[in-house]
Amino acid sequence: MAKPLNIGMIGYGFMGRAHSNAYVQVPHFFDTKYTPVLKAICARDEAKAKAFAAQWGYESIETDWRKLVARKDIDAIDICVPNNLHAEIAIEAAKNKKAILCEKPLAMNGAEGRKMVDAVEKAGVANTVWYNYRRIPAVTLAKRLVDEGKLGKIFHYRAKFLQDWTIKADLPQGGQGLWRLDINAAGAGVSGDLLAHCIDTAIWLNGRMDTVCCMTETFVKERMHNLTGKVEKVGIDDACIFFGKFANGSLANFESTRYARGHKALYTFEINGENMSLAWDLHDLHRLQVFDYRDEGKIRGWKSVHVSDNSPDHPYMDKWWVPGLAIGYDASFTHQVADFLTGLDTGKPASPTFRDALETQLILDAILDSAKSKKWVEVPKV
Amino acid sequence: MAKPLNIGMIGYGFMGRAHSNAYVQVPHFFDTKYTPVLKAICARDEAKAKAFAAQWGYESIETDWRKLVARKDIDAIDICVPNNLHAEIAIEAAKNKKAILCEKPLAMNGAEGRKMVDAVEKAGVANTVWYNYRRIPAVTLAKRLVDEGKLGKIFHYRAKFLQDWTIKADLPQGGQGLWRLDINAAGAGVSGDLLAHCIDTAIWLNGRMDTVCCMTETFVKERMHNLTGKVEKVGIDDACIFFGKFANGSLANFESTRYARGHKALYTFEINGENMSLAWDLHDLHRLQVFDYRDEGKIRGWKSVHVSDNSPDHPYMDKWWVPGLAIGYDASFTHQVADFLTGLDTGKPASPTFRDALETQLILDAILDSAKSKKWVEVPKV
Amino acid sequence: MAKPLNIGMIGYGFMGRAHSNAYVQVPHFFDTKYTPVLKAICARDEAKAKAFAAQWGYESIETDWRKLVARKDIDAIDICVPNNLHAEIAIEAAKNKKAILCEKPLAMNGAEGRKMVDAVEKAGVANTVWYNYRRIPAVTLAKRLVDEGKLGKIFHYRAKFLQDWTIKADLPQGGQGLWRLDINAAGAGVSGDLLAHCIDTAIWLNGRMDTVCCMTETFVKERMHNLTGKVEKVGIDDACIFFGKFANGSLANFESTRYARGHKALYTFEINGENMSLAWDLHDLHRLQVFDYRDEGKIRGWKSVHVSDNSPDHPYMDKWWVPGLAIGYDASFTHQVADFLTGLDTGKPASPTFRDALETQLILDAILDSAKSKKWVEVPKV
Amino acid sequence: MAKPLNIGMIGYGFMGRAHSNAYVQVPHFFDTKYTPVLKAICARDEAKAKAFAAQWGYESIETDWRKLVARKDIDAIDICVPNNLHAEIAIEAAKNKKAILCEKPLAMNGAEGRKMVDAVEKAGVANTVWYNYRRIPAVTLAKRLVDEGKLGKIFHYRAKFLQDWTIKADLPQGGQGLWRLDINAAGAGVSGDLLAHCIDTAIWLNGRMDTVCCMTETFVKERMHNLTGKVEKVGIDDACIFFGKFANGSLANFESTRYARGHKALYTFEINGENMSLAWDLHDLHRLQVFDYRDEGKIRGWKSVHVSDNSPDHPYMDKWWVPGLAIGYDASFTHQVADFLTGLDTGKPASPTFRDALETQLILDAILDSAKSKKWVEVPKV
Repeated sequence: MAKPLNIGMIGYGFMGRAHSNAYVQVPHFFDTKYTPVLKAICARDEAKAKAFAAQWGYESIETDWRKLVARKDIDAIDICVPNNLHAEIAIEAAKNKKAILCEKPLAMNGAEGRKMVDAVEKAGVANTVWYNYRRIPAVTLAKRLVDEGKLGKIFHYRAKFLQDWTIKADLPQGGQGLWRLDINAAGAGVSGDLLAHCIDTAIWLNGRMDTVCCMTETFVKERMHNLTGKVEKVGIDDACIFFGKFANGSLANFESTRYARGHKALYTFEINGENMSLAWDLHDLHRLQVFDYRDEGKIRGWKSVHVSDNSPDHPYMDKWWVPGLAIGYDASFTHQVADFLTGLDTGKPASPTFRDALETQLILDAILDSAKSKKWVEVPKV
Repeated sequence: MAKPLNIGMIGYGFMGRAHSNAYVQVPHFFDTKYTPVLKAICARDEAKAKAFAAQWGYESIETDWRKLVARKDIDAIDICVPNNLHAEIAIEAAKNKKAILCEKPLAMNGAEGRKMVDAVEKAGVANTVWYNYRRIPAVTLAKRLVDEGKLGKIFHYRAKFLQDWTIKADLPQGGQGLWRLDINAAGAGVSGDLLAHCIDTAIWLNGRMDTVCCMTETFVKERMHNLTGKVEKVGIDDACIFFGKFANGSLANFESTRYARGHKALYTFEINGENMSLAWDLHDLHRLQVFDYRDEGKIRGWKSVHVSDNSPDHPYMDKWWVPGLAIGYDASFTHQVADFLTGLDTGKPASPTFRDALETQLILDAILDSAKSKKWVEVPKV
Repeated sequence: MAKPLNIGMIGYGFMGRAHSNAYVQVPHFFDTKYTPVLKAICARDEAKAKAFAAQWGYESIETDWRKLVARKDIDAIDICVPNNLHAEIAIEAAKNKKAILCEKPLAMNGAEGRKMVDAVEKAGVANTVWYNYRRIPAVTLAKRLVDEGKLGKIFHYRAKFLQDWTIKADLPQGGQGLWRLDINAAGAGVSGDLLAHCIDTAIWLNGRMDTVCCMTETFVKERMHNLTGKVEKVGIDDACIFFGKFANGSLANFESTRYARGHKALYTFEINGENMSLAWDLHDLHRLQVFDYRDEGKIRGWKSVHVSDNSPDHPYMDKWWVPGLAIGYDASFTHQVADFLTGLDTGKPASPTFRDALETQLILDAILDSAKSKKWVEVPKV
Repeated sequence: MAKPLNIGMIGYGFMGRAHSNAYVQVPHFFDTKYTPVLKAICARDEAKAKAFAAQWGYESIETDWRKLVARKDIDAIDICVPNNLHAEIAIEAAKNKKAILCEKPLAMNGAEGRKMVDAVEKAGVANTVWYNYRRIPAVTLAKRLVDEGKLGKIFHYRAKFLQDWTIKADLPQGGQGLWRLDINAAGAGVSGDLLAHCIDTAIWLNGRMDTVCCMTETFVKERMHNLTGKVEKVGIDDACIFFGKFANGSLANFESTRYARGHKALYTFEINGENMSLAWDLHDLHRLQVFDYRDEGKIRGWKSVHVSDNSPDHPYMDKWWVPGLAIGYDASFTHQVADFLTGLDTGKPASPTFRDALETQLILDAILDSAKSKKWVEVPKV
């Protein structure tokens, strides 16, 4: 019989919904020893907390996260609030011996991140960061191919995350739904929001990054701030480009922006190895592009692999439908919950842990330092 | 407060899972007056029924569908069993004044289908058939564009549903998971299984089909039958191609097969109008291809519309995530449940009803008649 | 030293230009024993003949094709005039012992075609028909893969040729550039103009077709005739769909139209074999899509092969540029000339000969018969 | 009557063939006042010069380029030799009052390039550099859309040129066909060879680049040198990535490599404007991707424009075939010759002139300086 894992979630936005959905879906599709129980949702606004609880079936609500993390009947804290609150909550949750599932990026910066890592490791609590793209089946398949050594020596890793939703100059910054534009809440712009994903996948697939060189740009210099009602300087990076070198000698080229007209959420990566290259695109997340140099010369070409076989060939897909029927973005969270629960059971924690996510945070620090100093910066060791 | 709609489901296979998931998902994403309650699952094998109930949260089980349809606490019967059982169950459910959600195709043939239509209409019960592809957002958007008159006069409608999973000659017919290969359980091969979907979408988008001319082929003539343990003649069509004419004067070209190596579930359609053409592909279900002749000449081209904006622009998508993040195949069922529940509330039934589905059934009869007689056949009126 | 082959061309339209270009290009890219010499161009309009001769470097002109085919200094006659003139010219040219390169389709119908075959075979002159798509490198590569047996048993062959240029109802029929809409000049509509190409490729790749069943449609019933100045009944087929069976047991599905909004010249084919499937698209003529079932399961997918390697791997491409640099549509004619010249030298005639093209003609007859009779029709033997 | 322009070409490699083809093609497809005449080919190896002359129809040969540039009967010198010879030949040709068509990149570096610009401008001779990609119709169309102001404010310009042909470590450097790997002959690696193209297109479409920051890498440190027979240090850049800022405030992200397995000649660019974005890919050179924000919201998407209409809508294409029939890579050279000849006639020189190409050279200097110094570098004014 499955053991319950009582979830206390803080925040009820986009990610609150995505995580709640994952908790609900897991037992329907995966056989895990633990089963998530939607125990409590916490939000400052009581009415919103109640409405969210009703919609998703949370058993109770809280309006003060400190109360939530202190509750005896809560096993795990899910942090879905703006970045500036991650550290404080996580550290307190760790003290209360709660397992922690924290939204990405881990923290406002590396220093904060280190404190969080120390806290969870000292407390010995299970912990993970919601870099959900590792568990899109096509991306997981990429990891498997890399781990099998199919690529040979790696020469290049390229990633982009392009959006266009902030081109409108009269879009305000701050407040519900727009805190990502507020430097005080978000800590950074597209680097922390979007490149964080690209970097997490990259270091997972391609290992440590040693040195970086970066430029950033803020196209719209001032925006109305929703919380103050005043036009204020925009503190975030609207666009961020960096290159650098991985420890394995391959070259990095990363770019992110919210000013690329025509792209909604175009997270793409490509990795070029001596014997195989792989490419992926979030807009068609169920496909992995594979170029296999071992193929017969006359029919060598990029293969578009529809990662949807309900067989062990395609990660996670044996849990879903039949070949050809794609799953959605949301399934990546379901998979992460499933793996997290398995990790609880086996004692082998599912990646990325806080420690794994700290590496991404340190790279984010390094690129922003580089953009400021206009110099190459070495990425410190985790 | 939402009113409960107590569901009694018969069958626990691929579709049983897809429908159960939809019932669970609906209240999390849609605001409907009715909320599905997973009241009972019915299967002949008690152990399997129990396991399914445990996994999905059904409150009770039955092993005899007659008992289920007679239960007072059941409001709606969901029929997820092989085609040869649809009519009997549906007619009995109608007598018991249950709403009915029946898997496609409606029946083994038009005659059976007519009886089912008569039964539900006489009983005055809500009814629908799970032609779920109408509610893939990209397909629903196509319908909207057609209804707005954007296409102008229609010249062509083309559809294909190509798979490759029965190429293996030693694949048995019949039994769990393979009843689709058994003429007695399925009634037909790829015509009833796959073309049924293509036809349903076609008549929805392009109206009535008048005449058809068809060929079928059974590539593998004999297969081991799983239930009898003997090699038996294969009665189903392995491939089916037909052309014909719609009432609006446009030409139909349809094809389906399970012998198209390389295609998992390639359901595609294309409709060519005087002013606009549309195309869709289940393998990339979140995209609609649009050619708009009104575009400026020098930049006219096929647009790949990523139907994922969380705005009223893109049907259903305002209920899900943010632009660029695709939903899966499963969401089409969730949408159908949501629309069915809205129909219950408003009294305007969501399509396709049994009557709508009968039209598809009559076309299926006509094409199989044509394949047999090697002549053109007129499609009878519903 | 290369031997001259003195060309006398009749006609100066689109195909006149395409062939002339090929004659010029061949010696620059191919080493052939014969070299084409642009000896004479023939057109009824002397001024136009002169202008064409000046532009392409023809040494002389004629205004009467009978004079041209009688000239001693002409070795080969290239027939680039409307279909209704092919037979008469070809038969006369054969009598004069000229090699003949005839535009497609071979003739107005099979009976005419048979006379042409008889004439060239009796005269013992080299002959070919300009079904140029056989020599798009990606298509030639497809042939090579089929011949190597890589596909295994073939189940399906599908082809379409979709255009949209005649949707305009006020487009006249007949006369320069529009003779393809005039039944008396063209003999047929999209069947003879477009499906002829599809059929030629199909029988080359997949062998003889045995039986067919067809429908045609003329959407615009009357058009102004450019030559008479009157509105006249349109005699051609605007759209043509047929299915049928190849001698190898595979199923045919063919369609052609000039009413598919959004498609300029979308000639596509797909062939599904037990072990490999191939697909090609004229709009991206330098690519062959290959699905290889022998690939490792987890990375099986359709490969997009960019057929541009300057190596023996990719037919003809070792004569052109470097990998990745595509050649154009026009190169297919250049390749055909090169192969024709090689055939002259070796005595092994390059396909398709008149006899090969007669097979296509007989299928065209059969489909038009079927469309008229609304019955299945057997294709007679060549 | 067309006036002859007597061409003297130096070099007979890949580019010698591409240019010769263009000279031959121009009069067949374009009406220009000048007609190129293949007067002389120059190569040190007399046998090779003779063979090339025979194949392409050059009237004479030279083995000493100084003799060629001094010949009275030569009007224009075409320089198709390795980069280290461009400056000397061009300056001497200018002294001899010859028009000059020089292969790209203009020179080994900016200093050399300046001398060349001075020489041609002092001599007042027509001059151009073979940055042929400006005249791929899809690219020319992009320029037209930019010039019409359709894009609005530009935020991003991204370009890549990825190849994989030097991954093999035992590929030698230097000598025929491999001089691009020899620092002394090429002056640089992928920067000068490939990024030069990307930069030329970029400054044409998006204007001046102000500052850059770059990294380079040489993956294979030593290779056998074909000319010396010894293993020698590799001096070229195997990969080169840079970012920077255009004068219009948009951000640059450029990358080039010969170690991207799976890419033959993947030159791509994308430009993101407020109202429109454009993307292009050399592998499918006949298509321009256009995202038009002015499109109706629900059918907004990237359009794949098949730039093949024989109408003024699509640059140059009215000279070729009919809609849907693609031209090849080679046509870009034909177009450049046509425009060069028109420039000779009208006195309005066709771009890019030596002066235009110097701007690219100065950017190449700047990025290589930056890669060396690991600092941002300002691009000097032309």
